[in-house]
Amino acid sequence: MSGAKPVTIDLNSDLGESFGPWPMGDDVSMLGIVTSANIACGFHAGDPAGILKVLKEATRRNVCVGAHVGYRDLVGFGRRNMDPSSEELVGDTIYQIGALMALARAAGTTVRYVKPHGALYNTIASDARQAADVIAAIKAVDPSLVLMALSGAPIVRQAREAGLTVTCEVFADRAYNPDGSLVSRRLEGSVIHDPEVICERMLRLVRDGVIRAVDGSDLALEAQSICVHGDNPAAVAIARSLREHLQAQGITLSPFAA
Amino acid sequence: MSGAKPVTIDLNSDLGESFGPWPMGDDVSMLGIVTSANIACGFHAGDPAGILKVLKEATRRNVCVGAHVGYRDLVGFGRRNMDPSSEELVGDTIYQIGALMALARAAGTTVRYVKPHGALYNTIASDARQAADVIAAIKAVDPSLVLMALSGAPIVRQAREAGLTVTCEVFADRAYNPDGSLVSRRLEGSVIHDPEVICERMLRLVRDGVIRAVDGSDLALEAQSICVHGDNPAAVAIARSLREHLQAQGITLSPFAA
Amino acid sequence: MSGAKPVTIDLNSDLGESFGPWPMGDDVSMLGIVTSANIACGFHAGDPAGILKVLKEATRRNVCVGAHVGYRDLVGFGRRNMDPSSEELVGDTIYQIGALMALARAAGTTVRYVKPHGALYNTIASDARQAADVIAAIKAVDPSLVLMALSGAPIVRQAREAGLTVTCEVFADRAYNPDGSLVSRRLEGSVIHDPEVICERMLRLVRDGVIRAVDGSDLALEAQSICVHGDNPAAVAIARSLREHLQAQGITLSPFAA
Amino acid sequence: MSGAKPVTIDLNSDLGESFGPWPMGDDVSMLGIVTSANIACGFHAGDPAGILKVLKEATRRNVCVGAHVGYRDLVGFGRRNMDPSSEELVGDTIYQIGALMALARAAGTTVRYVKPHGALYNTIASDARQAADVIAAIKAVDPSLVLMALSGAPIVRQAREAGLTVTCEVFADRAYNPDGSLVSRRLEGSVIHDPEVICERMLRLVRDGVIRAVDGSDLALEAQSICVHGDNPAAVAIARSLREHLQAQGITLSPFAA
Repeated sequence: MSGAKPVTIDLNSDLGESFGPWPMGDDVSMLGIVTSANIACGFHAGDPAGILKVLKEATRRNVCVGAHVGYRDLVGFGRRNMDPSSEELVGDTIYQIGALMALARAAGTTVRYVKPHGALYNTIASDARQAADVIAAIKAVDPSLVLMALSGAPIVRQAREAGLTVTCEVFADRAYNPDGSLVSRRLEGSVIHDPEVICERMLRLVRDGVIRAVDGSDLALEAQSICVHGDNPAAVAIARSLREHLQAQGITLSPFAA
Repeated sequence: MSGAKPVTIDLNSDLGESFGPWPMGDDVSMLGIVTSANIACGFHAGDPAGILKVLKEATRRNVCVGAHVGYRDLVGFGRRNMDPSSEELVGDTIYQIGALMALARAAGTTVRYVKPHGALYNTIASDARQAADVIAAIKAVDPSLVLMALSGAPIVRQAREAGLTVTCEVFADRAYNPDGSLVSRRLEGSVIHDPEVICERMLRLVRDGVIRAVDGSDLALEAQSICVHGDNPAAVAIARSLREHLQAQGITLSPFAA
Repeated sequence: MSGAKPVTIDLNSDLGESFGPWPMGDDVSMLGIVTSANIACGFHAGDPAGILKVLKEATRRNVCVGAHVGYRDLVGFGRRNMDPSSEELVGDTIYQIGALMALARAAGTTVRYVKPHGALYNTIASDARQAADVIAAIKAVDPSLVLMALSGAPIVRQAREAGLTVTCEVFADRAYNPDGSLVSRRLEGSVIHDPEVICERMLRLVRDGVIRAVDGSDLALEAQSICVHGDNPAAVAIARSLREHLQAQGITLSPFAA
Repeated sequence: MSGAKPVTIDLNSDLGESFGPWPMGDDVSMLGIVTSANIACGFHAGDPAGILKVLKEATRRNVCVGAHVGYRDLVGFGRRNMDPSSEELVGDTIYQIGALMALARAAGTTVRYVKPHGALYNTIASDARQAADVIAAIKAVDPSLVLMALSGAPIVRQAREAGLTVTCEVFADRAYNPDGSLVSRRLEGSVIHDPEVICERMLRLVRDGVIRAVDGSDLALEAQSICVHGDNPAAVAIARSLREHLQAQGITLSPFAA
């Protein structure tokens, strides 16, 4: 980075994924690290009382909140492909956003964006029908809600053409194919575990808009947000080190939707 | 009543109670009869796509909509007593109201009131702790939401003292004890089936604020709304005849929350 | 048919598909028509109390019962494609069969076969991986359980090679492609509504093992059972007329697994 | 212990309580400590794939398995009071037992007993109607299944009079009232955390059939099994130390239903 405009980036993470007696992740720690929190809405994870609690903590920490909507598949954590009809997907998406909006209001904050979760996230990246359903649902609730989507995926353009503001995110710990898609989790090397490598990759992304793909080529990726994970102590540590590294390099961390 | 102010009353009914492949009730017919629709919110009944459909029809018919919140008990249809903690009940209530609000917005209408359902309705009528939780939830979402409650029950006063507007409802087809409570469904004569008797009772209630209790005594009951059922063809016919009877007697049917 | 061995066939139908307060189908009437009842197991439909009730009636009517296992998708009625892992599908299938077995024992009868439902039925017809999971699950519970499957589909051979007994079923009211697959419900003419046509088609199938495909060609189909529906009064009437027609033609109706 | 018959006792614990992506407890460690495993059946916890896994491990470890049946309340973990009808409770109990039986068979083992969970456990200890429903359900599935119940509670006698074999259990880490009931978890001192105290109390119970109540009086309690917990590392350590202490004192640990 050189002079002019200070470089800023958003850090986001999936939170509120506990369910009833089952905890998941270290939400309190992560709310001290990220600038945006994707909060589960009850379909793939999250119960209302637990969601409300994390929303109150997000308010206290001044972290921006988004609706992390998913397929209606609790036991599968929303990670299994499904083929809901358009009526079902539109209805389910509106329902989840609305539920989170009211809980957010009760917690003193506001839902600013929508990030689909798991199999829904992956599907709508390139499935134009399901993408259109999610886009229609967001617009029906509040067209000023931002959609957070996979940088470089077809949905980014589709949603923008439909009039939505889109935030492009890049995954801090995932390897990328030269075409911008994520390397499948089934392949070796798909997840990067070395904190230093992660920090260097993300710094380059933020400064230069470029990331090294698995074949060694450079890939240009639009990035307003970086997704980090917090589902285990190592992940929390990586997220924290990334935050500190970026800040030490003069990058400002700030919610994209502030 | 004679002269001065025209007498008006609201008719309400429970709608949107289908679930997935299972239909329930004749929502379209009922939306031509009632002035307020208590719409299921997904916990005891109602799936998002089906709820959205009935909300669109309510918008078309200019029927006022309320959130029919219930216990999280789908197979038991919210009719079984449960003892959620305050955190759970507050969270569940906010969640349901919010989900319906967003669906209502997508349908071009607005949630104006909250009517608890089934076992929750009966419990909060006199259980001050659970009543306080529901009241707190409503206030946390939007203090201008009206609470629809059982006329004469302790919750009416509790909610008003807490600052909520309360609409008192009377059941068209239920027998009343002299203290204003409903005769238990387990007792003979608890449900009135004769349309003429129903019409006469409700007309007297609307005009004079009085209903005949099971012991023959007269019971004064505040009533801004009358609850009718539509879960079978006979019920729909009774609701329609009540509407026509009241109108023929010069009563104006109008949503309490218009 | 000519002399020797009397021709027999089984009639099966999907029953026990009510859920909590929501009824579905006319189970009592259908138990007077069919010889085998595919009973929902709680994942796509059916609650334990309701399932137990229909099992008792099946016992009284001497109708053979099978486990109608489905995907874990209540709101979608098991009709939406899903991609459970093998561990999940094996576990879910065993769980459902076992639950029905115990309910059957309580009702004085025994589960004799397994018929997958909806999207699972269609998927395993040709998806060898999911088919293998269902086959493994059945064998793990009781290898003497019969699998009821789509006549002519790859799973028939796969299951037989794995050592299961397979009953091939043909749908009374569905049109067939020349390759033995069902004409998609999305296409016109996929469902046959004329009772006479249905009776003639099934009589020919039972006698000659042949059915007319949509292109006019004759299709040879192994058939030990005919599937009829009972989810509406017209369907019940068709099922009854088919039963009477077959009997009038000297066909014996008898459970394949008696 | 002195001479004659060697003293034996069973150690039991609640296992299989993970759900989908959410782990709970350290099942593998606990299967190295206990002699009987109460396995969740999917209504308050446990998904089929996860249950199957723990059943296979129980088989490998030669641990006896029982069905840990609960109310249908996943988010509340079966800890909230409910009032199912008799039809519902009988059906739900049979369903859960059967599901576990089939999974056990697939894992190479057999369900030997039934232990109700959470609010159901507490309710049936003294609620004769719900107790009768659970007893009827067990008998309908297999009258040779043993019921594990709270030592000294009315259900013990009720179940024995109904013909069931009952195993009485005592809680290793809970304080007792002089009447044999557990000190409410809401009161201080209800849970005992000191491993030495626990070991001494249980040793005395096993040898002399006596436990010290909170008022200092001695309470005679029938005990065929001791319940230990494994939901956190401290609990696992306590369970292990109890096992070692009892063995060091010459007590034989052995499943009651072997």
